[in-house]
Amino acid sequence: MSIPTPDTVAAVLQRVDTDFERSRDTLFELLRIPSISAQPAHKADCARAAAWWRDQLAGLGFQADIRPTPGHPAVVGHHPGPAGYRGPHILFYAHYDVQPVDPVELWTSPPFEPTIADGPRGRRYVARGAVDDKGQSMMFVEALRAWNDAGGGIPAKITVLIEGEEEVGSPNLEPFLVANRAELASDLALISDTGMWDVDTPAITTRLRGMCYAEVTLKAASRDLHSGLYGGSALNPINALTRVLGELHDGDGRVQLDGFYDKVSPVTNAQRAQWDALGFDESAFLGDIGLTVPAGERGYSALERLWARPTADINGIWGGYTGAGSKTVIASEASAKISFRLVPNQDPDEVYEHFQKFIRDRLPPGATVEFIGHTRSPGIEVNVDSPWIRAAQTVLTEEYGKPAILMGSGGSIPVVTSLRNVLGIDSLLMGFGLDDDQVHSPNEKFDERCFHRGIRSHARLLAKFAGG
Amino acid sequence: MSIPTPDTVAAVLQRVDTDFERSRDTLFELLRIPSISAQPAHKADCARAAAWWRDQLAGLGFQADIRPTPGHPAVVGHHPGPAGYRGPHILFYAHYDVQPVDPVELWTSPPFEPTIADGPRGRRYVARGAVDDKGQSMMFVEALRAWNDAGGGIPAKITVLIEGEEEVGSPNLEPFLVANRAELASDLALISDTGMWDVDTPAITTRLRGMCYAEVTLKAASRDLHSGLYGGSALNPINALTRVLGELHDGDGRVQLDGFYDKVSPVTNAQRAQWDALGFDESAFLGDIGLTVPAGERGYSALERLWARPTADINGIWGGYTGAGSKTVIASEASAKISFRLVPNQDPDEVYEHFQKFIRDRLPPGATVEFIGHTRSPGIEVNVDSPWIRAAQTVLTEEYGKPAILMGSGGSIPVVTSLRNVLGIDSLLMGFGLDDDQVHSPNEKFDERCFHRGIRSHARLLAKFAGG
Repeated sequence: MSIPTPDTVAAVLQRVDTDFERSRDTLFELLRIPSISAQPAHKADCARAAAWWRDQLAGLGFQADIRPTPGHPAVVGHHPGPAGYRGPHILFYAHYDVQPVDPVELWTSPPFEPTIADGPRGRRYVARGAVDDKGQSMMFVEALRAWNDAGGGIPAKITVLIEGEEEVGSPNLEPFLVANRAELASDLALISDTGMWDVDTPAITTRLRGMCYAEVTLKAASRDLHSGLYGGSALNPINALTRVLGELHDGDGRVQLDGFYDKVSPVTNAQRAQWDALGFDESAFLGDIGLTVPAGERGYSALERLWARPTADINGIWGGYTGAGSKTVIASEASAKISFRLVPNQDPDEVYEHFQKFIRDRLPPGATVEFIGHTRSPGIEVNVDSPWIRAAQTVLTEEYGKPAILMGSGGSIPVVTSLRNVLGIDSLLMGFGLDDDQVHSPNEKFDERCFHRGIRSHARLLAKFAGG
Repeated sequence: MSIPTPDTVAAVLQRVDTDFERSRDTLFELLRIPSISAQPAHKADCARAAAWWRDQLAGLGFQADIRPTPGHPAVVGHHPGPAGYRGPHILFYAHYDVQPVDPVELWTSPPFEPTIADGPRGRRYVARGAVDDKGQSMMFVEALRAWNDAGGGIPAKITVLIEGEEEVGSPNLEPFLVANRAELASDLALISDTGMWDVDTPAITTRLRGMCYAEVTLKAASRDLHSGLYGGSALNPINALTRVLGELHDGDGRVQLDGFYDKVSPVTNAQRAQWDALGFDESAFLGDIGLTVPAGERGYSALERLWARPTADINGIWGGYTGAGSKTVIASEASAKISFRLVPNQDPDEVYEHFQKFIRDRLPPGATVEFIGHTRSPGIEVNVDSPWIRAAQTVLTEEYGKPAILMGSGGSIPVVTSLRNVLGIDSLLMGFGLDDDQVHSPNEKFDERCFHRGIRSHARLLAKFAGG
């Protein structure tokens, strides 16, 4: 094969521009499928999203098929690239599933009817999954299509893996990687599920927090009780749960689990200096969401708290009467969902053990406790000195006129760990989300400008991998 | 008129026995009406229950009609009693509304399809409202019917007041009493909404706790947030709510509101001795509901904690993601419903003020708070040395072969306060519920034996008031 010439790249980029409305329409097709992996009622929708992806890949000349798992199916596609291709074999990973939409009453348009709205930076697409991860993942597909239509074909050797359980912690992904290790063998993973520094400043994410997500239920009486007849004698599990969880942090915002910080490495002075130089404006960051005062661990800068310090957040709590008006009941049980964001070296299993101990140590007499373990994945740092990161830096500089920020993310992408552990490959996290995208929230959106330049950036990256 | 003879009373009691199956069928008619006052969807059912009551009273020769209120309607009926009646004018108060049925999945039969089941003490009726207050209130109606059918007519001057908002704190009752003060003027109130000591030991309740019920919502960000992107910087209102409410009690179970115990009178030594002599078995009381260890304020006996000490119970809590699986969200708000059971002299309005202060004093920077006040009513003690209580003691001793216990109740019957304040009358609380009736809980029931002997006791009481 021949290495792509600048003219070919230019033709591909022009094709991205002229074909853009069709790209958006295609994305909207995918956004209309309510593929909520957490909710059993949407099982068929998840299967539909998988089929849609298979058809997209097949239409681009991939050998693609749907792979059942014990949960929602995955999609795998292969393309050999041009004859004589000598660049890296790319494993593109994405997920077709999305978060639940509640509280649905806060959406200004139906979550699965993608809507074009005006925002401060031009058009935006509003829908569940607009950015996470349907919008982000379709940038790669549209870059491939432009190459196919205007660049002489798919320019690289590519394997695509699309899963349907990322939003529920990817319970079947690692077994799938293990079972298909040979088929998925590749040189690097390319993932678009992260953010930019701002709308004009691209970013590559090199540091991700891990996760330990647990659910706890305190149980007391065998049935709900009248608070008048039993109040003062019978244990109230909601009282007890607030008392126990109220001790999760000390007055300085430090998590009180045994040994929680023992394996947390302080960031280097160099690292801290680099982050400080970014001039992150926490007031503006919080102002966008109606807050004025930072919360969290005392004594650390905002970026350090977000990228390099572990946290504990109660993600949900429920018990007793939650309807209109009043009901004088002492509930028989109360529950909460709690997640710990972890940094490299913290062991998620150990954190889960210590969380259970934390609760048990504080359990009032007569209460019993049950735990459900959800996601557990460690924090990770990728090698910032790889040829893939250099390639991405180059193309992002070409597209945006300035180099990408190498940043951390407070979020977790457990697949990065799995890909390293099972396939032995590093991930290149080149994402185009913005802080105000309302990921996992009502009115999730994706700026059109990000979608458009994201497609162009991926088209350029493919050229770079192909040697152009 | 003539004073009822022993033969007349015997005939009336026999009529109660021979007509008992029809009495049960009539109660079941009422139980089939899902008159849940807290839920707007059941508004028409509440109206239906009111109409049913009016028809019952009219059938017994009362001049009865439905009285609209700003909420659910009340029913008022009058009967002059026999010519020449010289006994007390009785105001019978009851409520036709019932509590919500959730969690409905824990019911073993549909809550509004009354079912006869076998229990350790014979037959029981299972339905929402079986005891509270449909079963209890229908004992009086059936006693009246037996007098009508076999005793020569209604034997006393009676006014009946049935409200439909007791389970939501009777917001319109006191204005109704004020507006109809002259019409409702009477000598004593008779209320059957309390319990027995045990199935063979009758009781008269002379002491009731009051109530201050409040709802609190902590608000932080303007929208739900991704816990990865914001965790460590954005205030989590569920973390904050558990932290604040976790401080509601100290390690000895004492409520931490300012001045909460300032006006709480200690019980007298004589009172304590009387209660201690009852030999209340707290282990058995708790064992019935699957608990082994008492909770509540340290340093007080069980009956003192239940009858004479104030409490704080979180009746409901909710916020964030509460569905299946995991969602890594930081919620924008979190809420709880909290009720304080009060004893005489505590001021419910003051407690509500101090509760708001308690929360505001502990509010983390950046959080805002909203309150909703629900029921507020003071605790009360009725005069234990009245002729009405002596009359009830006599008839209960006749029916059960032993005197009734004069007891306290941990629950609240705000109407007792209103009747005293507005009409200047004391209440006679002669009730037939049992501790295991599952009031306000799934599978609420009423023992048939209690229902039957309760009708007989009311029939006897009417004779006593008529001078028999």
